[in-house]
Amino acid sequence: MFINQLISRITPLDESAMQAARARQSTLTKPAGSLGRLEEISIRLAGITRQPLPRLTHKVITVMAGDHGVVAEGVSAYPSEVTAQMVYNFLRGGAAINVLARLAGARVVVVDMGVAAELEAHPVLINKKIAHGTENITCGPAMSEIKAVRAIAAGASVVEEEIRKGLDVLAIGDMGIGNTTASAAIATALTGYSADALVGRGTGVDDAGLFRKIDAVERALAVNQPNCEDGVEVLARVGGFEIAGLAGAILAAAAYQRPIVIDGFISTAAAMIAVKLCPQVVHYLFAAHCSVELGHRLMLEWLGLKPLLDLDLRLGEGSGAALALTLLEAASKTLAEMATFNEAGVSEKSA
Amino acid sequence: MFINQLISRITPLDESAMQAARARQSTLTKPAGSLGRLEEISIRLAGITRQPLPRLTHKVITVMAGDHGVVAEGVSAYPSEVTAQMVYNFLRGGAAINVLARLAGARVVVVDMGVAAELEAHPVLINKKIAHGTENITCGPAMSEIKAVRAIAAGASVVEEEIRKGLDVLAIGDMGIGNTTASAAIATALTGYSADALVGRGTGVDDAGLFRKIDAVERALAVNQPNCEDGVEVLARVGGFEIAGLAGAILAAAAYQRPIVIDGFISTAAAMIAVKLCPQVVHYLFAAHCSVELGHRLMLEWLGLKPLLDLDLRLGEGSGAALALTLLEAASKTLAEMATFNEAGVSEKSA
Repeated sequence: MFINQLISRITPLDESAMQAARARQSTLTKPAGSLGRLEEISIRLAGITRQPLPRLTHKVITVMAGDHGVVAEGVSAYPSEVTAQMVYNFLRGGAAINVLARLAGARVVVVDMGVAAELEAHPVLINKKIAHGTENITCGPAMSEIKAVRAIAAGASVVEEEIRKGLDVLAIGDMGIGNTTASAAIATALTGYSADALVGRGTGVDDAGLFRKIDAVERALAVNQPNCEDGVEVLARVGGFEIAGLAGAILAAAAYQRPIVIDGFISTAAAMIAVKLCPQVVHYLFAAHCSVELGHRLMLEWLGLKPLLDLDLRLGEGSGAALALTLLEAASKTLAEMATFNEAGVSEKSA
Repeated sequence: MFINQLISRITPLDESAMQAARARQSTLTKPAGSLGRLEEISIRLAGITRQPLPRLTHKVITVMAGDHGVVAEGVSAYPSEVTAQMVYNFLRGGAAINVLARLAGARVVVVDMGVAAELEAHPVLINKKIAHGTENITCGPAMSEIKAVRAIAAGASVVEEEIRKGLDVLAIGDMGIGNTTASAAIATALTGYSADALVGRGTGVDDAGLFRKIDAVERALAVNQPNCEDGVEVLARVGGFEIAGLAGAILAAAAYQRPIVIDGFISTAAAMIAVKLCPQVVHYLFAAHCSVELGHRLMLEWLGLKPLLDLDLRLGEGSGAALALTLLEAASKTLAEMATFNEAGVSEKSA
């Protein structure tokens, strides 16, 4: 589906389903409000899915991968080859996201959006490669606007296919050496904060690497001058293929009324692009966690999202989102499965 | 086993197992430290269990129930009968803890430590009733010291039986109308903070109820004058049977080198008693979450524990502990199941 068609399908949350969920919460055998944020989540899930008792049976984590020309500026502690190596690790089931997805009962879908290597075919790998990595954003745009739009549509198509297979909830994750630099550039462009408030150590650069990274983001924005009101332009000038794919995945999930769990720094940058393209999208998003990566908290504040977890994670891959999936499931299951005061014969609160 | 025998078995964590876990973490396919608190948890689990690769297969949540004479002072929004009614709800599987335990793959064990009603026998209900509720602590001790010791031993015996059945990790929860008042009294006695810093709204009393509750705690401490260096005395004078049982459960789990996940306000009060009896115990504890209940944060600080979740919960029953079990499992499974850099052929960080 074209991006504009997806966006036109994204509607406000369903008030009547939310009202039904809220009413049911007040009848369940617990003091009113005592499940705290789980209750809020359950109500929002009802509004997103249009179901008074939302079920999150089919859980999918899409991990999108891409490489970044800006790595030439010495912004990462790891070489670009690690992107492809980690994709193979995902396919063999040996990465953190595989372990955490198994625990959450979720299926991992790995997407090559723009890895700078020809990857061997694999049943779990979806090939949506737009190019072999982005251009170096300190010298010019990461990609053409046509490629940015194609990448968004490609990411959306992955989710549309999963929805046909029955997806109830989407979690997103990323892999891409250099992508904290691209994400920080997006966040700097969209929030208006200075680069040094948003650039962090990523996979673990030293102080010199951190200064190179801040400098790279500043140069990328100076060279590219993206119009911060245009999500596609920001993405094309300083973004990445996996970030574009994740933005498309978010738009598609929202268009089909599915909740979306975003992960850390990179998937939050993708969410910011999606929200820039369609502000309604934010109501479909759950922020899994607050990363250690500097700037993530500011990005979540810009989105107006409060993270569910704060566990000093900074891995990406969707690892925090996988953990948060269990919290969403806890919210939907307590709403659906708890006994009411009437059913259980429990006395209600005295007046 | 007698309490002193349990305490004599509680040892420091195993340094060599922790060192092995720490060393393995550094070989796994992720930037060093990027799994944040999950890595810390995995290392502590190794130290607790003496296993370099701790497994948390058999998960048990013991929910202990008891009634409180102090309810006569108008400190709760619900009548005492709700304690027994909720026990039946647990046995039928309709309470929040049942839903969350199923999600976590944990078994719920319900223990009558001192419910003020004769409960019908049920395969899942363990009868360790010491008395039909405590005495009113504003008039004198909650129970005799002999009963306090018997309640601790009874709670410990429940866990010893579960360890024979294969328990790998213990989560604890409570049910007892009036037990936030008893827990606040314990916390006030042990921390030295004033009652109004520790007394919260429990299941939801209004302002007048809150003032009655603060007043009840102040009177209970004035009447009983517990020696805050003596855990059994504090428990006997202002505690409760389920709190005593949970303290015993904690001591037993630690004596058998099993990790313990504590829940909210009441199970934290029980943990404070256990730590007062044996300071080493604290290393075996994981604080599941920070409750909305006023004072819980101060109690966790007194213990030196940082909560894993902050979801505005205030239900008890072990509901937060059930959610945190999944995080402990995530920690142990990422440690055990992730591929190493060598296994996956992934390049390590450049020097």
